[in-house]
Amino acid sequence: MSSPTYELLYWPGIPGRGEFIRLVFNAAGQAYKDVCNEEEDGIKSILALLSPSSTTPIFAPPALRITHIDKNNTPLLIYQTPSILSYLGDALGLAGADNAEKAWIQSHALTALDLNNEAHDTHHPIASAKYYEEQKDEALKKAQDFREARVPKFFGFFERVLKANEEGKGRFLVGGKLSYADTTLWHVLSGLEFAFPKELEARKKDYPLLFEAFYPSVKEHSGLKEYLASEKRQPFSNGVFRHYPELDRQ
Amino acid sequence: MSSPTYELLYWPGIPGRGEFIRLVFNAAGQAYKDVCNEEEDGIKSILALLSPSSTTPIFAPPALRITHIDKNNTPLLIYQTPSILSYLGDALGLAGADNAEKAWIQSHALTALDLNNEAHDTHHPIASAKYYEEQKDEALKKAQDFREARVPKFFGFFERVLKANEEGKGRFLVGGKLSYADTTLWHVLSGLEFAFPKELEARKKDYPLLFEAFYPSVKEHSGLKEYLASEKRQPFSNGVFRHYPELDRQ
Repeated sequence: MSSPTYELLYWPGIPGRGEFIRLVFNAAGQAYKDVCNEEEDGIKSILALLSPSSTTPIFAPPALRITHIDKNNTPLLIYQTPSILSYLGDALGLAGADNAEKAWIQSHALTALDLNNEAHDTHHPIASAKYYEEQKDEALKKAQDFREARVPKFFGFFERVLKANEEGKGRFLVGGKLSYADTTLWHVLSGLEFAFPKELEARKKDYPLLFEAFYPSVKEHSGLKEYLASEKRQPFSNGVFRHYPELDRQ
Repeated sequence: MSSPTYELLYWPGIPGRGEFIRLVFNAAGQAYKDVCNEEEDGIKSILALLSPSSTTPIFAPPALRITHIDKNNTPLLIYQTPSILSYLGDALGLAGADNAEKAWIQSHALTALDLNNEAHDTHHPIASAKYYEEQKDEALKKAQDFREARVPKFFGFFERVLKANEEGKGRFLVGGKLSYADTTLWHVLSGLEFAFPKELEARKKDYPLLFEAFYPSVKEHSGLKEYLASEKRQPFSNGVFRHYPELDRQ
């Protein structure tokens, strides 16, 4: 019986929600195929799953296809970022040591993903399929509320989580080792720093564990450090995180 | 060793995100305490978890506290609706029979919860902590996009899922028995029918499996039928789902 093989199915050229999955693979040292970034017509695999005739319909990418998982070699297909993260976290040792750790890691990762979604909605508050320019007035209002009310609420929460987890010494949200909650929150912070540089600069000092211990340490983790310095890491551009200076603190 | 006991911690008086958890308990025939609806000062339990001094900080309710879970009797606390659902689904037999079913049930439940969140955002597109009346202009635009673009996208997807799952005969999203994905989607459909009655009436005929097989059958399930007819079920009012006639189809 061979080892499981992993194929990530996500849009090419942007970090997007696929990046949460890529970070887990890299942190665990697990090889994977990033189909759309590695194969010229990789996007066809996604379109097939989204097609009305798919026998395994997914709502949206990312999806993960795992083969060689059991002796019958039935491939397993998972979609929705939190589902993929909890599955992979378990399979690759980044999901916690017991039920309590697993529950906290999953819950904190979901909270970081909520922050990710709210960051997306700052530039698309009305219609996700329309252009930013068509909803710019509303985006200005949404971004102001996000910066003034939501960012401090989320940052304050994660600061408290880091403080309450003494074993983590500010470096891990749960327990004493890296989990997929850490990589997920780290990527969201990194996206916020790209999208709202002035807002983050102004707020960092209020959350010392988050920005002096957690944020600098996660990216030094073996596997992540090499990946983040490589060309495999897609730069932020016009995905979930976008840098529109007018949406940042003025 | 006694059986686990379950305490749901959620705001009183509304279905809200707590309802997804209540439906799982009732579908499984599992007793639970709905703390804020059953105890006069139950809300203090939530405020303690949200307080800056909490040693187990949660970002927001719902949370679930489980005691008598192991021989050390260490209580387990979980927050975030999808985390609670996947834990309870496993514990109470509503999460699927194998890895593939578990993955699909979790992913489809997350997709139904995304629809739930988008329904909330129709009346609060700019700032979740401000009044509807302060963001009514934006709500009119957001609700229009939700009704015209998002609702058919989600309904079309779930119709395809029901069609692809032949074993479910239109009654179950995954496999041949009820799962927490079914109860979760059912509650969202029920909330949409409350909030957007004209829109749903106009669209139902396009999704026959969803509205002629799935939606009427889930509420007849043993456990759910009794709960839904009881006074324990909180009516929709001013929570996630709100009936503002101006946001419905005109």
